[in-house]
Amino acid sequence: MFNTVTIVGVGLISGSFSLALKDLGLARKVIGVSRTEASRQKALELGLIDEALPLEEAVRQSDLIYVAIPVDVTIPVMKQIMDLVTEKQIVADAGSTKSALCNALRDHPMRGRFVATHPMWGTEYSGPEAAVHDAFTGRACVICEKSKSDPEIVEKIENVYRQLGMRITYMDADNHDMHAAYVSHIAHITSFALANTVLEKEKEEDAIFELAGGGFESTVRLAKSNPAMWVPIFMQNREHVLDVLSEHISQLRKFKACLEKENTEYLQELIEHANQIRRIIK
Amino acid sequence: MFNTVTIVGVGLISGSFSLALKDLGLARKVIGVSRTEASRQKALELGLIDEALPLEEAVRQSDLIYVAIPVDVTIPVMKQIMDLVTEKQIVADAGSTKSALCNALRDHPMRGRFVATHPMWGTEYSGPEAAVHDAFTGRACVICEKSKSDPEIVEKIENVYRQLGMRITYMDADNHDMHAAYVSHIAHITSFALANTVLEKEKEEDAIFELAGGGFESTVRLAKSNPAMWVPIFMQNREHVLDVLSEHISQLRKFKACLEKENTEYLQELIEHANQIRRIIK
Repeated sequence: MFNTVTIVGVGLISGSFSLALKDLGLARKVIGVSRTEASRQKALELGLIDEALPLEEAVRQSDLIYVAIPVDVTIPVMKQIMDLVTEKQIVADAGSTKSALCNALRDHPMRGRFVATHPMWGTEYSGPEAAVHDAFTGRACVICEKSKSDPEIVEKIENVYRQLGMRITYMDADNHDMHAAYVSHIAHITSFALANTVLEKEKEEDAIFELAGGGFESTVRLAKSNPAMWVPIFMQNREHVLDVLSEHISQLRKFKACLEKENTEYLQELIEHANQIRRIIK
Repeated sequence: MFNTVTIVGVGLISGSFSLALKDLGLARKVIGVSRTEASRQKALELGLIDEALPLEEAVRQSDLIYVAIPVDVTIPVMKQIMDLVTEKQIVADAGSTKSALCNALRDHPMRGRFVATHPMWGTEYSGPEAAVHDAFTGRACVICEKSKSDPEIVEKIENVYRQLGMRITYMDADNHDMHAAYVSHIAHITSFALANTVLEKEKEEDAIFELAGGGFESTVRLAKSNPAMWVPIFMQNREHVLDVLSEHISQLRKFKACLEKENTEYLQELIEHANQIRRIIK
């Protein structure tokens, strides 16, 4: 149980994290830090936070500071926070990339008070209104560079995530970023590109709207995701994402070649191979 | 209300169609036609059909013959059925492509007894076990070349689909195939290719399994789909699918170029453009 928790950012992840803490009785008070007055008001109104304060004051009052803002701004904001915290406080982030942040904080004298985490949950929506109850249950949470955080605070953070219903996995930051490129980032690029394909070429929007039942929604759903979140993720993880994206394009070109050459057997093989994904996702 | 309905194929679509007819009291008896003894047994066991018969005998006994088998075999089987039916019977299909079939039946003397339909519903599963109750509710059903079917049978088929909870849309067959390439076929290719990308490059399957929460499942779900169904769809609709696939690859290359050149602004633009899909899907 924390006396006071600050969430930096009052959006999808931080807001859902706050709701979970409140629902489970893990925080007496939650303070919100946000750059915009509109978000602060909305977060108060929705009960995501009990009070909105400027960063410095919020950090001073808190036992736990939980940062969930776009991964590019995370780095300077986190440095500012780390310069403020004492040996009695805990800092954690929820960012979708981990190498850049871990590298940026590597030599900070308070590095031990920070735990790098990535709860693997999200939706295509953003902002305070996107926060939901019971968001994280049944999902994985990655903790990176565990050995660089003080053991007692790792235990506390793990304990929070476990109470949220998550299973904990450990990885080094670069491995995390590579896996994240495969299981999340490429799916978003695919979805953005698919949306653009349809918007570009299919001029009869009524027809899409009318017919969009055949697998389209689930594949294109992620294309509604917020660029403020995703541009920095792609840029920070660009090497891994480029790797996966190049492979994905070459896989698509195989399908294209099959159709061009009417090579039914190879098309059959490609699809049978893809079916093996059943081994991995239920 | 039909006295006797034959479903040709006892899988996802035909099985779900049969369940819907039974649930709504629209068929006194459903006969199943299937090439394999295992499917016939399974369909009987699951209550999808009341009896399994060879095609010719089943057609002879039926008021409505509903065909939902892979689109390549649909053509010869449908010709066989059309050669058997009388002016008192109705034939409909549920195939995902419509041009090839409509063209094949264009000059058949019994063309008027056939309605070309495509109920826009499906899952990544196949076979009798994949059939579910209440499958079609809220989805669109496309009817092609309406004017070539006898008006009174179009009315009957529309009536069935409406009772199943579907809204009816009319298109010519080629238009249907083009729209289907956009709203369904390309999403399947994308998903197959994404599965192959991950299976090819991500050797740590445990990590995918553990982490697959971040958008991966919804995008790759369709990759579990049956090649026996999809190879013929892609081949029959290859021109439209190639068109859309080429555009999709060029859209992906834009993302690739942005990452290679670290062009943040253009990346932002591409994602903002993709976000406009919100206009079309809720």
